Order: sequence, then C-alpha cells, then structure tokens
Amino acid sequence: MSKSLVVLSGGQDSTTCLYWALKHFDEVRALSFRYGQRHVKEVEIARQLCEEAGVPWECMDISFISQLSPSCSLTNPSLDIEAEKREGDPYPTTFVPGRNLFFISVAAIYARNHGIYDVITGVGQADFSGYPDCRDGFIKSLNTTLNLAMDEQFRLHTPLMWLDKQQTWALADELGVLDTIRYRTLTCYNGIVGDGCGHCPSCKLRREGLEKYLEQTPSNSPSMGRKTP
Amino acid sequence: MSKSLVVLSGGQDSTTCLYWALKHFDEVRALSFRYGQRHVKEVEIARQLCEEAGVPWECMDISFISQLSPSCSLTNPSLDIEAEKREGDPYPTTFVPGRNLFFISVAAIYARNHGIYDVITGVGQADFSGYPDCRDGFIKSLNTTLNLAMDEQFRLHTPLMWLDKQQTWALADELGVLDTIRYRTLTCYNGIVGDGCGHCPSCKLRREGLEKYLEQTPSNSPSMGRKTP
Repeated sequence: MSKSLVVLSGGQDSTTCLYWALKHFDEVRALSFRYGQRHVKEVEIARQLCEEAGVPWECMDISFISQLSPSCSLTNPSLDIEAEKREGDPYPTTFVPGRNLFFISVAAIYARNHGIYDVITGVGQADFSGYPDCRDGFIKSLNTTLNLAMDEQFRLHTPLMWLDKQQTWALADELGVLDTIRYRTLTCYNGIVGDGCGHCPSCKLRREGLEKYLEQTPSNSPSMGRKTP
Repeated sequence: MSKSLVVLSGGQDSTTCLYWALKHFDEVRALSFRYGQRHVKEVEIARQLCEEAGVPWECMDISFISQLSPSCSLTNPSLDIEAEKREGDPYPTTFVPGRNLFFISVAAIYARNHGIYDVITGVGQADFSGYPDCRDGFIKSLNTTLNLAMDEQFRLHTPLMWLDKQQTWALADELGVLDTIRYRTLTCYNGIVGDGCGHCPSCKLRREGLEKYLEQTPSNSPSMGRKTP
C-alpha cells in the first residue's frame, strides 16, 4: 500500500495535487494549516473537499509564523493586499518568510507519525510570483534537510513545479476535476471562492491561465461542454 | 558593526555560545523558545542571564511542536524521562522530531527581521546523544535551505560542533564564565539548576565532562581555585 500526505490549502494548486495524489497513491491523507491568514475560509473548504473525497484530514495551528512577518499583508489585515510590492522591497507584500519551510517541515513530521514518507505540495516555480520558497532548488534542499534532521527517507513531490497556470488547469481537466477546482477552491486574496474577485494578483494569474486553457482546448477534451457552470 | 543572534535554551551549551558570541560579535541578541518542554524554568534562566549580560532577549512560543511528538518524554510529563530508549525505537525518548529544524528556522527569520544574518546554535555532534538534528551535515544542509527559502546569505555558527563536554567546559573557562555556566545554567531533565539531579542522561554527560576537565586542568588555568562555589 503506497501512502502519501498532501499539504492542502484549499486553493487551486494544492487541491489539484489532492486529486493527483488520489490517482497515484493507494492511501491519501491531507493536512491544512491555520497561520493567521486572511482567508481562513480556505481551511473549511479544504475540510469539505476532503470529506467528499473520503480523505482523512487534519488542521494544525502554526499561527506563530504570523508573529514572524509583521509587515506581511497576507496575515496583517491592516495592510493593502493588492499593493503587489513595496518600494525597496524585493518581495511581494504577501510574502510570509519561511511559510513553505514550516508547512512542509510540519507536514513531514506529521506524515512520519503516520508512517508516511511521501509528501505532496502544490508549489511551483513557473508562476512563482516572486516567492523564493516555491522554487525547485529550495524543495530539493529541504528534502535533504528533512532526511538529515530525522534520519529518514522522505520524498517531496511537486507535481506542479514546472507547470504554468494554463497547464495546471489542463492537469485538473485530465484528472476529471476541472469544475471542482474552478468552482469550489479558494485562491483569491480577497476570500471569494471560485473565480474570485478577479483583480487581486492571485485571481489575475488564475483567470489568465484558465482563459488560455479554455481557448486552446479542443472540443474532444474532457472539459468539453463544461465551460459554464 | 557585526551582529548575531544566539538560540538560547539556558542550558550549558547554548549559554556557553552566548558568551562566545559576546566575544566574537559587536552586537548580540538572544532568542528562547517555549515548546511545551518540562523544564520551562530554563526560559527564565535564559532571560536573567541575558539581562545581566546586557543582551536583548525574546522568547517565542512554538508549542505546536509538542503536538507533533506525542510520544516524547521531554514534552509529555506522563512519560518516564530517564528511560533512555524504548524497545524498537532508534531514538532517545527525549527526541522531539524536527526540534532544531524549527528552533533554527524560526531564529533565522527572526534574525532577518532585525537585519542579522549570523545565527549561533549550541548543537554539536561529539556528544550528540542520538539526536540526528545535532549533526554537522544537518546544519550545513539547513543553512543552504534557509538561504534558498529567503534568497539570503545566512551563516549558521556552531562553535561546539566538534567539542565534547570536557572541551565545552574548557571553552567556558577560556571565556571566563566557568562558574556562571556551572552554577547558573539548567541542563538537567529533572529541572534542577547547576549540577542538577546527577543521574538523568543529560546530567551524566555534563558531570563526566566537568570531572574530566577539572582533573586535567593545570593549576595556572583560569579556573584555578574555582572548583568549589
């Protein structure tokens, strides 16, 4: 029996990974995080999607990380989330330093407690939005660090690492879950499920990818006839 | 101005590192953690030592890690802390998986918020007690991972990496703080300051190192005449 754990935010990318995992592993678990994020509704979305898919789900509170990033607009509601960058700062205002480091490290230890060594995350560097901890080199280095920290052989899987948003939509369609991903997940920084607010940086990226995918989809693709709800 | 951050538990090793840092850097800060440990008194000891040394000090709560290690005797008071190992388990019962990974990662992000990129930790592999996350390979890998996670150039310093306990006592003596380390720090798993309970695994290691050091110390060493309080 192959077993895996998915780091699940309830957004487009990690939810696509959930269905990818269900195709590639016999047993799948999912772990979500509360970390003081604005759009905490995503946690409830993750729970519901797992319940429907029969996937055991848990949520851990690691909100100490919001203390570590007082100037981050993702965890500080007094800041403007749509100001993509601040003058003199190389990172988006939504960058939570070390977020993926903590998500994936906690997930690996949680997985190990369940006898699981395959950990799946939706990070990718094609559309990495300026977050250094979405890149392949970081993930490979973290994989080695986790193995050394616990004398184990973890395998971190990143099915979306080299896919842009258009290709991520194509993957969802191949997995037969285009509509689920489109209408049920939450990627919008303003907390609007599905197609979202349409104008925050996250919605823009998601929408542009979807439009490109739908335009180029041949009529015999799995998504045929599913372009509207 | 060179600046550094010390990860400070209030025990022998990290406190020796605090004084090492004060010798090697112009500015020193210290960070301690609450993580559900039995001997939380060490946090107060760390605070006092920093106050006396004029070192800015903070404590962060990362007690979520105790949820990750329900079978650990260091964070679960219902377990026997002196049972060094459980049958079939390669680790000491006091192993908190990922503890140093979290301590050092949180410290690096905290340091970055203060414009500090030199982070000092007291881990060492000479007397590593079976904890994989005290070894040099782990620290070097984590250093690379942290740099990649944040696109920064952190330097993790481990002054005790290759020193056994006897040599760590020698270093404290060279730094002129043998008595402070001996009588003020808390290393004992049973929470007794200074020479401790004398029989837990941590006290044994500490005492044996001190005895060897004091036996072999020539009479003109800095510790001369300080063998008793």
